[in-house]
Parts: sequence; structure tokens; C-alpha cells
Amino acid sequence: MRDVYHEMLDELTDELVEMSRLVGSMMQRASVALLEADRVVAEAVIADDEAVDAVNNEIDHRTAEILALQQPVASDLRMVIVAMRLGATLERMGDLAQHIAKTARMRYPDNAVPEELRPQFTQMAAVANRMAARMGEVIASKDVEQARQLENEDDQMDALHRQVLDHLLAHPEGAVNETVDITLLNRYYERFADHAVSVARRIIYLVIGERTDA
Amino acid sequence: MRDVYHEMLDELTDELVEMSRLVGSMMQRASVALLEADRVVAEAVIADDEAVDAVNNEIDHRTAEILALQQPVASDLRMVIVAMRLGATLERMGDLAQHIAKTARMRYPDNAVPEELRPQFTQMAAVANRMAARMGEVIASKDVEQARQLENEDDQMDALHRQVLDHLLAHPEGAVNETVDITLLNRYYERFADHAVSVARRIIYLVIGERTDA
Repeated sequence: MRDVYHEMLDELTDELVEMSRLVGSMMQRASVALLEADRVVAEAVIADDEAVDAVNNEIDHRTAEILALQQPVASDLRMVIVAMRLGATLERMGDLAQHIAKTARMRYPDNAVPEELRPQFTQMAAVANRMAARMGEVIASKDVEQARQLENEDDQMDALHRQVLDHLLAHPEGAVNETVDITLLNRYYERFADHAVSVARRIIYLVIGERTDA
Repeated sequence: MRDVYHEMLDELTDELVEMSRLVGSMMQRASVALLEADRVVAEAVIADDEAVDAVNNEIDHRTAEILALQQPVASDLRMVIVAMRLGATLERMGDLAQHIAKTARMRYPDNAVPEELRPQFTQMAAVANRMAARMGEVIASKDVEQARQLENEDDQMDALHRQVLDHLLAHPEGAVNETVDITLLNRYYERFADHAVSVARRIIYLVIGERTDA
């Protein structure tokens, strides 16, 4: 049987996994709202941002409590510090999903993504979904090989980001509001992927640090 | 005479103040590089990002050390947690200054900001400079009234951000690469101000929390 202290640490991991699932679901639905100009889905994603903030506050509270009452050391302390940082990063990823949903809502009933850029955004959405799912697994399993996979997926996102930018520059006849929207949307997907990589790197650091100590 | 433990906490604050000065200086010079198309200044800002990352790593190291060796409680613990978060936020502000400098470098010898938007960007630069300076003072003094001032300055930044966007939309004849650059630059300044506000809010929380406990 685990003691109360280790149960608290396990619960912290559970909350991070739950938060990453919520953020992944928000991003997946934000992409649906964007690509299908679905206002109802957009509204739901925008509303979910409060839930993410609430989980993050809960994680903040829990980590402060563990630090104050249990005074963890060594690998447990590193885990608590990493949890605080992951909470902040996941919260930011939720914000990005919300920004995408808000853009979809702002353009409704039009589609913010013009026909000719739908293939790239569909692919960016797919990469974001894969990365969010893998990120959740990595937080739960602390599997370093899985974590490293996120870097490869980020390369795919960067290539798509570049394609979208090149398309914009090659088609100066596009409407200016479309150019503004696409520039920002492109950045939101790219940043989402960057944050997933930063989560992976923190998990790798956590595990490698533990191994080095052993 | 202060003991070693409280000296460590004071040093943490000193490092955060130093980091905020460096980030403020980067942003100030990034704006110069942008508005005067100065490549040498842009390169210097880009190089400075490593120094910011180094200070942030130092803060991470120091906070982990304080948590492990001193096991702070109550307001000291809150201060250490806030320091970790401020380090991450300041690091991100340095990234934004670097992004602005990189845009200036990419367009050199051209000016990334067209003549008609120079007044707005000059004002955004001035607001960013004021906010960065005030942020450093707030970290050092933990003055709640000063911290609240940052919210007003953020409103000024938001109004300028809106003006730039409106200008873009009202002038669809602009070059597409200019629209892309301005959209992103506009966002970098807005985000920089948002981060300064988040620093202020954490300081307010720290102080109010202390007062509530007293």
C-alpha cells in the first residue's frame, strides 16, 4: 500500500494527464470548428478554457501543498517542480485552442481558412491531435522514446507552417483579413506543437535526471 | 545580520530584477532595430537571448536548491514558487524581443514597419519600455500600486494593437509580406505587455497573500 505522500504525487500525475486530455480535446474540436465553420463547437471550446484554468489552479494548489507539508527531496522534488511547469504549459496550450476557436467564431458563417489552404490546415490539425495524444501518454508513462517522437512530429508541424507562409506570400491577391487570420492561425498551431515539445523535454529531463542519480 | 537562508531568498529577487532589466533592454533595443532597420542592434538582441536563458536556468537551479535544502514554508515558499514562475515568464518576454529583432534582421536593409505605421509602433515601443521598467521596480519593491499601474499600461498597448489591426484591414493594398510581418509584430508587442501584467498579478498575489496571512 502506498502512503499518503506518494498518493499525493500520483494524483498530481493523474491531474496532469487529465489536463492534457482536456487540452487535446479542445484543440481537436477547435480544428473542427475552424475547418467546418461550426459555431456551436467553437463556443464549447471557448467555454472549456475555464475548465483548463481550474485544473491548473488545482495543480498549483496541490504542488504548493506538497512542497509545504511533505518537503519532498531528490526525484520527488523534481517531479513536483516539473508538474508546476507542465501545468503552466498546458494552460497555455488551452489558450491557443481557444484562440483558434475564437477565430472560427469571428468569421462564422464564413470559413476562416480559404479552400486552397484546407489541405495544410487539415494536416496541421492531424499533427496537433497526434502530438496532444502522445503528450498525454508521455506524461502518464514517462517513456523517453515516446517523448523523443514529439520532436519528429514538431518537424512536420514546422514544415506545414512554412508551406502555409509560402502559400500566403505566393498569392498576394488574397484578402487582407484572410492574410491576418491565416498568419495568426498558422502561428497558433506552430506554438501548440512547440509547447508539446517543451512538455516532452521536461519529462526527458525528469527521467534522465532520475537515471543519472541512480 | 541576515542568515544564509534569507540571503539566498534576497539573491533570488536580485536575479529576477537583473533578468527583468536585461529583458527590458532587449525589448528597447529590438524596437530600435525595428524602427531604424539597424542590423547590428538586431544581432546584439538576438545574441542576448542566450544570456536570458542562462539567468533563467540559474533561477531554476537556485529555487530547486532552496526548496531541497531550506524547505521554506508560508510566505517564503510562496516567494520561491513565484520566482520560478516569473523566471519562465521573463524568459518568454526575452523570446518576444528576439522575434522582433529577427524580423528587423530579415527585412534589412528595408524597414519592416511601413512609414504610415511608424507612429503606432513607436508608441507601442514606448509603452513596452515603460512597462518593462515598471515591472523591474515592482519585482524589487513588491509595490502593489505600481503593479496595478501595469494594467493601465496594458490597456494602452491593447488600444494600439487594435489601431494597427484596423489600419491593416483599412489598407488592403499593402504588400502581403508586410501584412504578415505587421500581424506578427503587433502580436509580439501585445504578448510582451500581457506577460508584464502576469508578472504584476503574481506579485500582487504574493503580497496580498502575505497580508491575508498576517
